[in-house]
Amino acid sequence: MTRPNSKDRELRERAEAVIPGGMYGHQSVRLLPEDYPQFFSRGKGARLWDADGNEMLDFMCAYGPNLFGYGDAAIDAAFTAQLAQGDAMTGPTGLMVELAEAMTAVISHADWAMFCKNGSDATLMALMTARAHTRKRTVILAKGAYHGAAPWCVQQPAGTIAEDKAGQVMCDYNDVASLEAAAGVAGDDLAAIFAAPLKHDAFVDQAQPSLAYARKAREICDATGALLVVDDVRAGLRIARDCSWSKIGVAPDLSTWGKCIANGHPISALLGADVARRAARRLYATGSYWFAAAPMAAALATLERVRETNYLEHIEALGERLRAGLNERAAGHGVGLRQSGPVTMPLFLFEDDPDLRQGFCFGSEMLKRGVYVHPWHNMFLCAAMTHADIDQALDAADAAFAALKAQQGTLAPVAKMSFLTA
Amino acid sequence: MTRPNSKDRELRERAEAVIPGGMYGHQSVRLLPEDYPQFFSRGKGARLWDADGNEMLDFMCAYGPNLFGYGDAAIDAAFTAQLAQGDAMTGPTGLMVELAEAMTAVISHADWAMFCKNGSDATLMALMTARAHTRKRTVILAKGAYHGAAPWCVQQPAGTIAEDKAGQVMCDYNDVASLEAAAGVAGDDLAAIFAAPLKHDAFVDQAQPSLAYARKAREICDATGALLVVDDVRAGLRIARDCSWSKIGVAPDLSTWGKCIANGHPISALLGADVARRAARRLYATGSYWFAAAPMAAALATLERVRETNYLEHIEALGERLRAGLNERAAGHGVGLRQSGPVTMPLFLFEDDPDLRQGFCFGSEMLKRGVYVHPWHNMFLCAAMTHADIDQALDAADAAFAALKAQQGTLAPVAKMSFLTA
Repeated sequence: MTRPNSKDRELRERAEAVIPGGMYGHQSVRLLPEDYPQFFSRGKGARLWDADGNEMLDFMCAYGPNLFGYGDAAIDAAFTAQLAQGDAMTGPTGLMVELAEAMTAVISHADWAMFCKNGSDATLMALMTARAHTRKRTVILAKGAYHGAAPWCVQQPAGTIAEDKAGQVMCDYNDVASLEAAAGVAGDDLAAIFAAPLKHDAFVDQAQPSLAYARKAREICDATGALLVVDDVRAGLRIARDCSWSKIGVAPDLSTWGKCIANGHPISALLGADVARRAARRLYATGSYWFAAAPMAAALATLERVRETNYLEHIEALGERLRAGLNERAAGHGVGLRQSGPVTMPLFLFEDDPDLRQGFCFGSEMLKRGVYVHPWHNMFLCAAMTHADIDQALDAADAAFAALKAQQGTLAPVAKMSFLTA
Repeated sequence: MTRPNSKDRELRERAEAVIPGGMYGHQSVRLLPEDYPQFFSRGKGARLWDADGNEMLDFMCAYGPNLFGYGDAAIDAAFTAQLAQGDAMTGPTGLMVELAEAMTAVISHADWAMFCKNGSDATLMALMTARAHTRKRTVILAKGAYHGAAPWCVQQPAGTIAEDKAGQVMCDYNDVASLEAAAGVAGDDLAAIFAAPLKHDAFVDQAQPSLAYARKAREICDATGALLVVDDVRAGLRIARDCSWSKIGVAPDLSTWGKCIANGHPISALLGADVARRAARRLYATGSYWFAAAPMAAALATLERVRETNYLEHIEALGERLRAGLNERAAGHGVGLRQSGPVTMPLFLFEDDPDLRQGFCFGSEMLKRGVYVHPWHNMFLCAAMTHADIDQALDAADAAFAALKAQQGTLAPVAKMSFLTA
């Protein structure tokens, strides 16, 4: 069952010479099992092929962007038709207005939109809008929550200075008392509360937002004039056809979007309520490619699919089937699988697995069988997946659980995960 | 000669409702003459059409990205062929390695590359790399130089806090004594000197880099261990087939790239010398679309064109023709035109024009004649322009200078430019 990997190894060797560390960022495989491919060659629908031509059913979906399938014909046709007319030009096209209208129509709390490229652009603009609006400095963040890779929010300190995180107060997600204490520390200087739509931190179980926590965040903002920001870059459109917190009835003032809003074409967005409009217009935020038209055409086609199909119910049904089927098979093999998060964004961890040796073994066994799962990051379902795909994943898991069970007592420590147990 | 603008006006009205201020960033026309279009519909070669179908010869080239012509057939074919294979996936393709190899082969100071999306991403990563490398904090910047729209470097304060600019010491571009004084202030805490490849600030005459200044920057970095950064996002590939400072024989440790490196497809880059490699690998820098393959295919096709054609000599010849022709025609009409910057990136200002009323008048007169020039920002030539295009611009300028001369004594103040004279 060994899959060829000579092209991947050759590319890694060449990359080592011309890219620091051979790769960087969230798509580096440095913290994944050794047999995971670093380089890919093709994607179609729910499937990927690595550089050596090995096919896999992909449960990472490009870390989110793939919502309707890689290379979706209609969305890519909208993109390429606009590309032939004009993409990055000396100004925007009317599509930018159409897209702002379409997004504010779909996202109920939003009255306006600003488009950018990275998710980090959108979260930074949310921070700046809140500070411009309130003319205050302090922002409350939840410990361990990911809001991007900019110095103000990145968790790794290399290259940052202490001042990059000035004005930040941390709380524990879903802990009302902790949120109140943070607001107490902020006093009359609170500019914003940032919230992930759910607890989707890496390495730990996911958690749905507690209604009490979300309401308390809204209440503190209403009382102080601070802005409530829901960072929907990762979860957006996989929880609701709206801001993810619409499911629990709490409306933010600002929300941030990216990844799947154009099915993988590069665009992100800050959406806001009227209260923040005057502040947003004072920002100087821009980028060389922010006004490019082709990704906006793709986003319009994606939003049409969001509005007019049952994609959400479909991926929820797939996710339920996957969750139930995995629980059943894991139990049948006596393996302590722990699934968390929304069924459309599952995370798999194992009981008694502090250095993830079981997770790494399971991932490798799945990959041998043509299914790509992640051992410590939430995954993503896409609407191009079918019930037959889920059954393929369940069959692979059945064999992978058996293989894990057989090796369970003899698994070697995972040295690259030692930071988790230090 | 009035050009239709009803569609532009209608789009502006709709935009006002759903985009803060109707538009934001560098492509907002807020600081341009009233008759400049905000919205465009099409681009091809060196030409743009606005939302109302008015054609124009475009000397902004998307603020830089358009180096080989809008919708270049070969570059876009490379892009769309890769798009059909896979773009944003769960990992990069081998094209990322090829592109790092190609860029480090073309840019002589560079041993490694990291790719990102915005120019601002690349300059921020340069800052972080320098701080990680030196474990020091202070950076020297030139007053008024643009290095992006992030809080650490943005010139407008809305939404930023004082700490965003912690550790910065300012100097005057091309002023050796000022640079030495800044280094004195930095003392033993210097992490980096940032330099634009030329003085290309808005609203003022451009200036070539002084050799003494560039050498002094290199010398200070060599003496202190700080990193020298040349920010080539704007000027890159329009000055040299290499880092722009290769023309004056000064090699930086880091250079930043964007805009035209994939002829408008979204990708930017940080390039570095070996000395900074270990620091760069410690950064956590990433983005949802940074590893996408299609812009990398476009960048490879663009670099091939850079290496294998005389595009640079061609745009230099066009630029010389434009500069000489404009000087001759301006003089013929007794108009005090001041041209500055490299001929491939010209800036037009007028004598005795503190609120730009002459520049605005000239711009509007050119636009009436189908030529888009900018009244206060450097412009860009592209290789799709022909000598006939330059002659068209010169004919338009001849008439525009005449019209300017006729109105010169009666031009109204430009209220939106009053900040320049405050």
